[in-house]
Amino acid sequence: MIIKLKHPLPALEALDGARRLDFPFGTFLALLGPGGPSLKEVQALEGVEWAKASGAKPILAARAAAPRGTRVALGACELGGEALALMGGPCSVESREQIVATANYIAAYGATGLRGGAYKPRTSPYAFQGLGQEGVLLLREAGDASGLPVITEVMDPADVEAMLPFVDCFQIGARNMSSAPLLRAVGRAGKPVLLKRGPSATLEEFVLAAEYVLLEGNPHVILCERGIRTFETATRNTLDLNAVPVLKAMTHLPLVVDPSHGTGRRDAVIPMARAAVAAGADGIIVEVHPDPASALSDGAQSLHFPEFRRLAEELGPVARAVGRRLDFPRSQCGVPYIRRAVGWGSAI
Amino acid sequence: MIIKLKHPLPALEALDGARRLDFPFGTFLALLGPGGPSLKEVQALEGVEWAKASGAKPILAARAAAPRGTRVALGACELGGEALALMGGPCSVESREQIVATANYIAAYGATGLRGGAYKPRTSPYAFQGLGQEGVLLLREAGDASGLPVITEVMDPADVEAMLPFVDCFQIGARNMSSAPLLRAVGRAGKPVLLKRGPSATLEEFVLAAEYVLLEGNPHVILCERGIRTFETATRNTLDLNAVPVLKAMTHLPLVVDPSHGTGRRDAVIPMARAAVAAGADGIIVEVHPDPASALSDGAQSLHFPEFRRLAEELGPVARAVGRRLDFPRSQCGVPYIRRAVGWGSAI
Amino acid sequence: MIIKLKHPLPALEALDGARRLDFPFGTFLALLGPGGPSLKEVQALEGVEWAKASGAKPILAARAAAPRGTRVALGACELGGEALALMGGPCSVESREQIVATANYIAAYGATGLRGGAYKPRTSPYAFQGLGQEGVLLLREAGDASGLPVITEVMDPADVEAMLPFVDCFQIGARNMSSAPLLRAVGRAGKPVLLKRGPSATLEEFVLAAEYVLLEGNPHVILCERGIRTFETATRNTLDLNAVPVLKAMTHLPLVVDPSHGTGRRDAVIPMARAAVAAGADGIIVEVHPDPASALSDGAQSLHFPEFRRLAEELGPVARAVGRRLDFPRSQCGVPYIRRAVGWGSAI
Amino acid sequence: MIIKLKHPLPALEALDGARRLDFPFGTFLALLGPGGPSLKEVQALEGVEWAKASGAKPILAARAAAPRGTRVALGACELGGEALALMGGPCSVESREQIVATANYIAAYGATGLRGGAYKPRTSPYAFQGLGQEGVLLLREAGDASGLPVITEVMDPADVEAMLPFVDCFQIGARNMSSAPLLRAVGRAGKPVLLKRGPSATLEEFVLAAEYVLLEGNPHVILCERGIRTFETATRNTLDLNAVPVLKAMTHLPLVVDPSHGTGRRDAVIPMARAAVAAGADGIIVEVHPDPASALSDGAQSLHFPEFRRLAEELGPVARAVGRRLDFPRSQCGVPYIRRAVGWGSAI
Repeated sequence: MIIKLKHPLPALEALDGARRLDFPFGTFLALLGPGGPSLKEVQALEGVEWAKASGAKPILAARAAAPRGTRVALGACELGGEALALMGGPCSVESREQIVATANYIAAYGATGLRGGAYKPRTSPYAFQGLGQEGVLLLREAGDASGLPVITEVMDPADVEAMLPFVDCFQIGARNMSSAPLLRAVGRAGKPVLLKRGPSATLEEFVLAAEYVLLEGNPHVILCERGIRTFETATRNTLDLNAVPVLKAMTHLPLVVDPSHGTGRRDAVIPMARAAVAAGADGIIVEVHPDPASALSDGAQSLHFPEFRRLAEELGPVARAVGRRLDFPRSQCGVPYIRRAVGWGSAI
Repeated sequence: MIIKLKHPLPALEALDGARRLDFPFGTFLALLGPGGPSLKEVQALEGVEWAKASGAKPILAARAAAPRGTRVALGACELGGEALALMGGPCSVESREQIVATANYIAAYGATGLRGGAYKPRTSPYAFQGLGQEGVLLLREAGDASGLPVITEVMDPADVEAMLPFVDCFQIGARNMSSAPLLRAVGRAGKPVLLKRGPSATLEEFVLAAEYVLLEGNPHVILCERGIRTFETATRNTLDLNAVPVLKAMTHLPLVVDPSHGTGRRDAVIPMARAAVAAGADGIIVEVHPDPASALSDGAQSLHFPEFRRLAEELGPVARAVGRRLDFPRSQCGVPYIRRAVGWGSAI
Repeated sequence: MIIKLKHPLPALEALDGARRLDFPFGTFLALLGPGGPSLKEVQALEGVEWAKASGAKPILAARAAAPRGTRVALGACELGGEALALMGGPCSVESREQIVATANYIAAYGATGLRGGAYKPRTSPYAFQGLGQEGVLLLREAGDASGLPVITEVMDPADVEAMLPFVDCFQIGARNMSSAPLLRAVGRAGKPVLLKRGPSATLEEFVLAAEYVLLEGNPHVILCERGIRTFETATRNTLDLNAVPVLKAMTHLPLVVDPSHGTGRRDAVIPMARAAVAAGADGIIVEVHPDPASALSDGAQSLHFPEFRRLAEELGPVARAVGRRLDFPRSQCGVPYIRRAVGWGSAI
Repeated sequence: MIIKLKHPLPALEALDGARRLDFPFGTFLALLGPGGPSLKEVQALEGVEWAKASGAKPILAARAAAPRGTRVALGACELGGEALALMGGPCSVESREQIVATANYIAAYGATGLRGGAYKPRTSPYAFQGLGQEGVLLLREAGDASGLPVITEVMDPADVEAMLPFVDCFQIGARNMSSAPLLRAVGRAGKPVLLKRGPSATLEEFVLAAEYVLLEGNPHVILCERGIRTFETATRNTLDLNAVPVLKAMTHLPLVVDPSHGTGRRDAVIPMARAAVAAGADGIIVEVHPDPASALSDGAQSLHFPEFRRLAEELGPVARAVGRRLDFPRSQCGVPYIRRAVGWGSAI
């Protein structure tokens, strides 16, 4: 049973064993396991706004738990607010030079977050598996240099602790969307979580995966549509933008779209990023690489630097057309554009 | 073998049995069947721009045949040009009152075409099968009343002749996308064809279906992405907007998107229409009904009249954000808005 | 409304407009369209066994209409009975020599039917489209020479009449499974229909397609599972053998399986044919060609002659393991094996 | 690079950093990472049978590495040999009584292994999550009581160590098929691994997941086809039996089929188990529960005890029809049937 409290707390003695979840959108009690009071009894308690039986449906992540939507702060950007998030970076962190150059470039052209893989889930054990913790440290360094918060994937619950001090947002990759131990581990860690939809997960299953994180007391979940697996072979995945309006109705969590994995084709990334914003997404996450042709992974879908700039330039007008904004570029915003003080600005 | 001609015609005596295809984007010869000259011999002929061996790939519908894209005129709208097409109407023509009211309403709010089913492909033989030829006549009447060109599905090649005088554009439904007899019949008819993607057709198969129509001498094909069938159950189909940039690269044909069938949910139609335009589609086709709750088919995905108006209003800014335009509404266009003289204007 | 009659006919005057369907498994009245008596009124009539409201579900094809299953006679084989059907032949009829040789070979090794395409649905308009009516006549000739009933695809309702005298069973191909005009045309023709499942059709949609045929008064429908389209690329389609037990519960119609299209790989055809029989299929339909390497279509999935023999030999024991039988080969049946007198027997 | 050695070892000094893998089907060296000798140089070394560049394809798990197939011993059964494996048990271990009764029943009727979930991957965090380590101990107890080896899923690499003493075979569930940390952990543990195919994994991706395990030095991998996710809703998954012949060609590893998850319907489990055996699977794994109606998970697809008996009885003849055998039941085997001495025999 999940209970939403009004401000005066209920008689907690009646609810032994309840776990309290203090979220920006309300205080909840999770009363799980056998025994305990009935739903009716709890609903009658003073201070209870509502109580729902827990079962096969999301409750904490459901729209009804926060009808006006929630926001997740990541660096200077509040995902779910009016301003769009624009996260970019290479598939894999490959070297200091590569990640710092990318971070600085995209920060200059409107990025609000830096992504980069250190622990890489790869289909073949012979493919580049990422730099591991060394990659995490390089990413942190690039994040600090550029002023961007960093997002990176965690694959093993045992790695969460070591990564925690260096990471601003944990990514749960599509292949691990339904790994309960991993979801619980990042739930307990408390930092923002970028949760990618599994390639064959229904939207309801996707929101239930987020529910695992919330149930650990962590409400900072950002959903990410990144394409599903279908029969179509002209694209790597089928980007399911239907997910945008449907998830907006199902859940209060912010939602970003990854057109890089969602298409697998560089030439389709910008059009699909525009489409995602027009559909109502709260942000975009794309792969960018200084030299895609030599990338150790996902080169075919990574943008060149100037393409990232074009992406940012094209997203602005679409954002405004749907009542959102992208805090870039200056000339189109018509307002002075002042980056947080960082030394690399002159290099652009 | 398909041959593209430069202006001076080649020595035709060398190409016995070739069929000549005069398209707005060039003159082609189709030299099919066994025997005949070799590809090399033909390529050496004077007047031959290029010649390609015919096989498993599209040639006439391929981008390379008309690199700058083609346009298909339908009423006042030229699909593939700067102005977007906006086609609407009920799933099924149910009565004169229903179809005329719908036509007039959507014409007043920016529609460029009227759709309505007379011959309906239905999963169950017990479902409403459409009014047949009577429905075609009612649709024509509504088209005339509203000044909108009419689009309706043909299911049986034998019906093409009777429908031809009354129809501005034949629709090939998703279930019949690969019916060669039907594709050939509408190819021979010569009028514009709205070809819907089959629910499990790859994009290449889709373009090859168009190739059937072109090969009959009819270049007026409008492709329509309307969703593919996947495992997701929260939506009726998965609208594959990846198809927009990918088809734009594969073919020169104009492309519209149907977010009604592509989502199956009224609440998702407008966001996905916006997304389609942002992705680069040349138009939108949606289901609209005076009273969706009582519709004989597809009620759950049909827009109410005011929703169609909102659709048109929301599409305008998105269109402009991507360098296109929707010739509606007045107030936003900043230009006087004058409908073609029709009596019903005052009723709105 | 569909009404099942007990032997004494009900007061028909009460049921104006009802169409009578005399099937081996009972007499039914189809009372469709608006108006007429209520379900309750009809259920109360004398002679009515049951009456069901018609809607989104199959009735005539549903298991409940013939709980013990139905049989469809095709040549000497009664599909749905204890003996399995074994249908083979080339994808396309290419020449007299090819089709007669194939027919004679497979007849000698246990085939109960000869398949061969004359009107071919092809993805590309440049691919071999079949010999058309000439192919139908050659197929008939080969059927007569070998004593096998012939099965061939019809794509255009307009072709049914010309094909009717020469064909023992019309095939509706997977791409046309939901073409109502075609289903109605073969329904009216009255001969057995082999209905292939569409590549993205659910099982319920498949049975509803059969319902179209039955509703025209033709109960001789044989369902054919031939693979569905999924993300897997190692096989042409994913043969859905789950369909066998599930369809056996949903419908009374006999069901065969096509492991050639269902796998697209010659090396997988025999194992999957064995699997289909073990799952409970009523027969197998496979592609066989005298020289698959030179086949004009589907060579990669066509069996060589000796592989067809091996198929028949391997199916026998599996059939017996599940309480069925394949009337071949002699040595394993333990009974004298006498082919219907045809001259080619000595050639084997 | 992966190197297969002939018996005399090559000059190992040339291969610094190579990891040696001693498998029943040969000795291999894995020489990964940058630098080192070229493929040509290695191929020229004495004692090298072959060497292959490592990349996107399986090598150690590929058929070519052990052309005659490999066997994995699990209790008294050698998977991949002539005798079929028959593994059964509840979805979740729920109580001592439940698991011991199930173990004893299935052991008496031909089972060769006992499955039961202790750590359960569940879509909803509110669903029963399994008894955890307590469940592992109960499963062990039931295994000891019945004489059956036990198989249970591990979800978190951190759990492997604690489970290791009590488990005979680790299961990697479908959702975790591509979790590299987990695959490596069970690879290092060295015990047999039952690797389930992910619901949207291609067969090549499936074999590459096995390659992760082998590369850790553990060749005891049993593949398990358990259905893929498709559009079909009449079944929980689409059991892809094409996987059987195709995997037999791609890999040397033994392969079992799970018709419980592959269909989700109790009435389809036995027919599809028969089909799997006929297709050439090396064994079957099914869900069995003393009282499916009250099961805490997967009740709808769990067999009742007598259905398990019927399964074993029906599989025997099919196994023999394809040259395999199921060491049960007595009466059909025609040989005395003596269970390993355990006290519960009388209870049946």
